[in-house]
Amino acid sequence: MSKNVLILPGDGIGPEIVAEAVKVLNVANEKFNLGLELVDGLVGGSAYDVHGTPLPEETMEKARAADAILLGAVGGPKWDNLEDRELRPEKGLLGLRSGLELFGNLRPAILYPQLADASSLKPEVVSGLDILIVRELTGGIYFGKPRGIRTLENGEREGYNTYVYSESEIKRIAHVAFQSAMKRNKKLCSVDKANVLEVTVLWREILEEVGKEYPEVELSHMYVDNAAMQLVRAPKQFDVMVTGNMFGDILSDAAAMLTGSIGMLPSASLDKDNKGMYEPCHGSAPDIAGQGIANPLATILSAAMMLRYSLGEGAAADAIEKAVSDVLDKGLRTGDIFSEGMQKVSTAEMGEAVVAAL
Amino acid sequence: MSKNVLILPGDGIGPEIVAEAVKVLNVANEKFNLGLELVDGLVGGSAYDVHGTPLPEETMEKARAADAILLGAVGGPKWDNLEDRELRPEKGLLGLRSGLELFGNLRPAILYPQLADASSLKPEVVSGLDILIVRELTGGIYFGKPRGIRTLENGEREGYNTYVYSESEIKRIAHVAFQSAMKRNKKLCSVDKANVLEVTVLWREILEEVGKEYPEVELSHMYVDNAAMQLVRAPKQFDVMVTGNMFGDILSDAAAMLTGSIGMLPSASLDKDNKGMYEPCHGSAPDIAGQGIANPLATILSAAMMLRYSLGEGAAADAIEKAVSDVLDKGLRTGDIFSEGMQKVSTAEMGEAVVAAL
Ligand SMILES: CC(C)[C@H](C(=O)O)[C@@H](O)C(=O)O
Ligand SMILES: CC(C)[C@H](C(=O)O)[C@@H](O)C(=O)O
Repeated sequence: MSKNVLILPGDGIGPEIVAEAVKVLNVANEKFNLGLELVDGLVGGSAYDVHGTPLPEETMEKARAADAILLGAVGGPKWDNLEDRELRPEKGLLGLRSGLELFGNLRPAILYPQLADASSLKPEVVSGLDILIVRELTGGIYFGKPRGIRTLENGEREGYNTYVYSESEIKRIAHVAFQSAMKRNKKLCSVDKANVLEVTVLWREILEEVGKEYPEVELSHMYVDNAAMQLVRAPKQFDVMVTGNMFGDILSDAAAMLTGSIGMLPSASLDKDNKGMYEPCHGSAPDIAGQGIANPLATILSAAMMLRYSLGEGAAADAIEKAVSDVLDKGLRTGDIFSEGMQKVSTAEMGEAVVAAL
Repeated sequence: MSKNVLILPGDGIGPEIVAEAVKVLNVANEKFNLGLELVDGLVGGSAYDVHGTPLPEETMEKARAADAILLGAVGGPKWDNLEDRELRPEKGLLGLRSGLELFGNLRPAILYPQLADASSLKPEVVSGLDILIVRELTGGIYFGKPRGIRTLENGEREGYNTYVYSESEIKRIAHVAFQSAMKRNKKLCSVDKANVLEVTVLWREILEEVGKEYPEVELSHMYVDNAAMQLVRAPKQFDVMVTGNMFGDILSDAAAMLTGSIGMLPSASLDKDNKGMYEPCHGSAPDIAGQGIANPLATILSAAMMLRYSLGEGAAADAIEKAVSDVLDKGLRTGDIFSEGMQKVSTAEMGEAVVAAL
């Protein structure tokens, strides 16, 4: 039975880094007899340029039909000033997440021993760092209604958004988080602002309730301001963290940056049946797009995650991850992770080195 | 003319650290002939225990009558499970902020050269760090309505809060931020999530508009997820940052922690006439309350900030800050900032050392 993978390069450095991941997938496909069929699609600004919308119906159909999706990144200054906000590249990404109900976003923050120096934190604070952030991805203030900008009676304008979660939305992400914790060190820290926000009072209550089904997991709660501090102060205290869409956006980026190598970090966004979309944690980096210097490893590792979580091909995933580790051992580095004494390579050279190692 | 200062010790370590700041204020009062009259009041859990409310009307009246307010910290596990959320300690603090319209929250993140080692970041990343975070404090999702937890038609519950800002609320905090930038290095970074949240689209627009009145200030915009990353990666790129209540809560704590000495950082919350409430950036630390080991310096420095911003006593403020620097030079350290070779002192010893240096 063939497995259908939708490839969405997106904008900025997206096409460059996805091209390398596709090379790796093609080789893994042959070597491990995976039966992958790769299909292409447009999303984000590049879709807007062709179809006048960041999420063409054709892409949505391909996405529904796919067994898994590999995405580069979306967005860029070219489309930042589009008057109609619904047409901006980000709406393509948000539309995919919500249209496919990819509510479970897994963002690992791992320090690669070969890159220990790249972190802005002291080595003893981050060596061996291995955190998993579980972010709710299809609810919260990202999608809450009402939202907009309106004119008040006194003539001035007011902007408003709604931060909302229902019990069932909280429950399903809680299960993802507890299950992830069960596969790791059985420690789960739920992040909220329950001293101020009612929506997170409910969040905390439901986390406690679902926690009863996972008595082996040690559940703790932390306010988001404290969590941001603790990530800087002593990140190794965490195993799995779970939080809503907005706090997850902020904390997962901070956590990723602790490793000093955000160009290395993959992510998975899963629906209830583990169908998923995989993308690097970093953005579309328009400032370096087209120069062939972006780091393709986060996308290649996203492809590995895809094989493991959505396609049941753990051995192929292991092999890709091993190949990435091997090229790092050899001293190959793109500019973002370069340090004295290493060999600086281009996007394509890095991709080809992974292919060779595989 | 005498100047009326309301002292609100609050909960946890609040009373211990405020006691030291009061000693320092009393000495400065005599030495510089400041004409300060200190009045006491209850707020937070300690007010609830006596009056059944975290913000007794008596305290509110004293606060309105005062020229400035010095606050310790509020909150603690003792009151975390109060059924009626309106009675929790935090509501006392939020009630003061909003009742007095203290919308401009200034949170400096400064690395004390004497404490450079205390940071979890590499010295080269943080040495000389001096950021000012300007946080809007009486609006946004902290106070937005509607808010609550309701039961939906299908029987499940839903929690909701409203993130809302009007043009005039954004304008007044923008002016505070630009004016702060004018007094510093004339660089202002406004933090929003304008690619997702409409309320921050308006925020960005108004910041641009107000910026025209400050042509000397270089204004930039950054998404909050990127800001959290950049604070970890290269915090010295920032001079002044301005953002809303919720993002400001998160980013100011992260920024404070970069210095490794959150026990050192003061904050000011100002109304339109620069009347203000001053408090340490750290919380009530119930885990170490009553042990006499908390660091009183953030509160002492908050008192100095109060003299400078609200009471027009810059010379006395300078003297207190100099005294704090002197005791650090002498090697005195409370536990939170202790390092090998220094002399560990108690809360009271630290306070008395500052008094002596003054
Ligand atoms: C591009 C943007 C809409 C997106 C988000 O905020 O979710 C990105 O920051 C991310 O974290 O995947
Ligand atoms: C205690 C709490 C309500 C408060 C806040 O969130 O504003 C605190 O974290 C702060 O930053 O002053």
